[in-house]
Amino acid sequence: MKLAIMGVGAVGRSVVDLAPDYGHVVTAVADSSSAAVDPSGIDVDAVFDRKERGGVVGSGDPEDALDAEYDVLVEATPTTLGDAEPGFSHVRAALERDRHAVLANKGPVAERYGDLMALERESEGTVQFEAAVGGAIPILSTIADFGPSQISAARGVLNGTANFVLSRMAAEGLGYEHVLAEAQDLGVAEADPAFDVDGTDAALKFVILSNVLSQGERVYSLEDATVEGIRDIPASALDLAAEDGRTVRLIGEATADGVRVGPRLVPQHDALAVSGTRNIVQFETVNAGQLHLSGRGAGGPETATAILSDVGRLE
Amino acid sequence: MKLAIMGVGAVGRSVVDLAPDYGHVVTAVADSSSAAVDPSGIDVDAVFDRKERGGVVGSGDPEDALDAEYDVLVEATPTTLGDAEPGFSHVRAALERDRHAVLANKGPVAERYGDLMALERESEGTVQFEAAVGGAIPILSTIADFGPSQISAARGVLNGTANFVLSRMAAEGLGYEHVLAEAQDLGVAEADPAFDVDGTDAALKFVILSNVLSQGERVYSLEDATVEGIRDIPASALDLAAEDGRTVRLIGEATADGVRVGPRLVPQHDALAVSGTRNIVQFETVNAGQLHLSGRGAGGPETATAILSDVGRLE
Repeated sequence: MKLAIMGVGAVGRSVVDLAPDYGHVVTAVADSSSAAVDPSGIDVDAVFDRKERGGVVGSGDPEDALDAEYDVLVEATPTTLGDAEPGFSHVRAALERDRHAVLANKGPVAERYGDLMALERESEGTVQFEAAVGGAIPILSTIADFGPSQISAARGVLNGTANFVLSRMAAEGLGYEHVLAEAQDLGVAEADPAFDVDGTDAALKFVILSNVLSQGERVYSLEDATVEGIRDIPASALDLAAEDGRTVRLIGEATADGVRVGPRLVPQHDALAVSGTRNIVQFETVNAGQLHLSGRGAGGPETATAILSDVGRLE
Repeated sequence: MKLAIMGVGAVGRSVVDLAPDYGHVVTAVADSSSAAVDPSGIDVDAVFDRKERGGVVGSGDPEDALDAEYDVLVEATPTTLGDAEPGFSHVRAALERDRHAVLANKGPVAERYGDLMALERESEGTVQFEAAVGGAIPILSTIADFGPSQISAARGVLNGTANFVLSRMAAEGLGYEHVLAEAQDLGVAEADPAFDVDGTDAALKFVILSNVLSQGERVYSLEDATVEGIRDIPASALDLAAEDGRTVRLIGEATADGVRVGPRLVPQHDALAVSGTRNIVQFETVNAGQLHLSGRGAGGPETATAILSDVGRLE
């Protein structure tokens, strides 16, 4: 397949790197200021060399990538809230040309799901977004395989930064600010950590899960979610929990009652009490009990793997 | 889709029960001595009522089910070793008629994989066997989604009976014979537990995983597996392990080095140290680290769910 990649952060770059292993050709890449387009496959080294040196990936405008020859548009620009732009317009451009769109960007799927599904219905192209929920973990493909009506609820840990902070606080008896600074040093937390520690990122993922599980009966967005973050959790709360054999995790839920994200007490050795940046999702199934899927929920190659699995499903 | 069900144990009956929820019609069922066939859908209550009272499911010969009108043959007779009959012949009959075959029976996939793939190549029908490995856990569909070449090894616990015995021995400090008798009382272990406690059942599942992961480069059967069971593990070994923060689990492996199953020391709170009858598989991926999938590895409705997901993939 021919791929056009929008966004050249860690995820976009990993897709460019791994695409040949899956037999695909990258015909266009774009960041927010420029694009490189070549119908026979871009010169990857030249593109990233230019990006390193001068900050541009190529001589074209970003929109040139949208007009390029491709089968699948990969939307890997940063997640934005509200109108979810420019990601939403990128996906619309692909679907209006009857091309497929694969998203790592959570914005369009969590904030404009109804619009997205309406565009897909009018298009010969298909929308996939496994990479938007839980990185490498095959969460959406498992829902598709089971059938959404066979899964009554999803719960779990889908933000590695918050989980790293909480598990370090519990293991070392350290305070939130101290562990957050450590996480920032390690590159596990952003300079502005609000998106992760306030629960927004996890909430977007559980909004997406609710959209998939409800099969269009109801459309959810971040506004419908009840969200509480982890900034105000004192180290003493983790100590108290530990005395009782429990710990605290930032748990999200997508159930018939809606979307909720917040700190919850869980048994210390519970399946949901994963450590470090690991993610886990627990499905309640109608006929087959609980199912757990866990793995790396973020990272360039991990997320690229989910994108390329989605591309594989479109062949 | 129209389904013909070979085998009316717990799994076959659950498929019959759940098929209407998935929009399918059961046109034939057979056990080892008789069959009921009706192109417009069998009368389920009458069939099981006859089976309860007289031991036969219907007035036909078992072979009549193979000649019935169906899209998918569901092979749910007991797993047999060596020639894997009669399961293998049932599947061959379906493929030779260009129908699909979905197996819960491990025999044909573990013992005659080469023959099975050869039949599939000559047929318009497709062979699926998610239910043969790990019950409700979507193990094979995850391999298919990732691509087998993206997974370098599989490890884990795929026999609930052996895991129940080991986790009870560790938790209660009881000996093997005592816990086995308890498991038999609870229906977790068979009267003849050899298949489970000697590691054969787990080995068949890891043989199947090796067959799938090797993509036909090499065909594995039980003969290729190195298998050790749990009968000879003394309670004292579990006590010693516990003093060191570890426990013992019957761990299977499908790696480039082949198939191995045997008791292994694992950390007490390791992901692989699941409790009770729970199953877990751990994939080593090429680009996305480790991935864990866990859930119920056996049971009628659980296994039927996997069968019906397979049927869904054939539509």
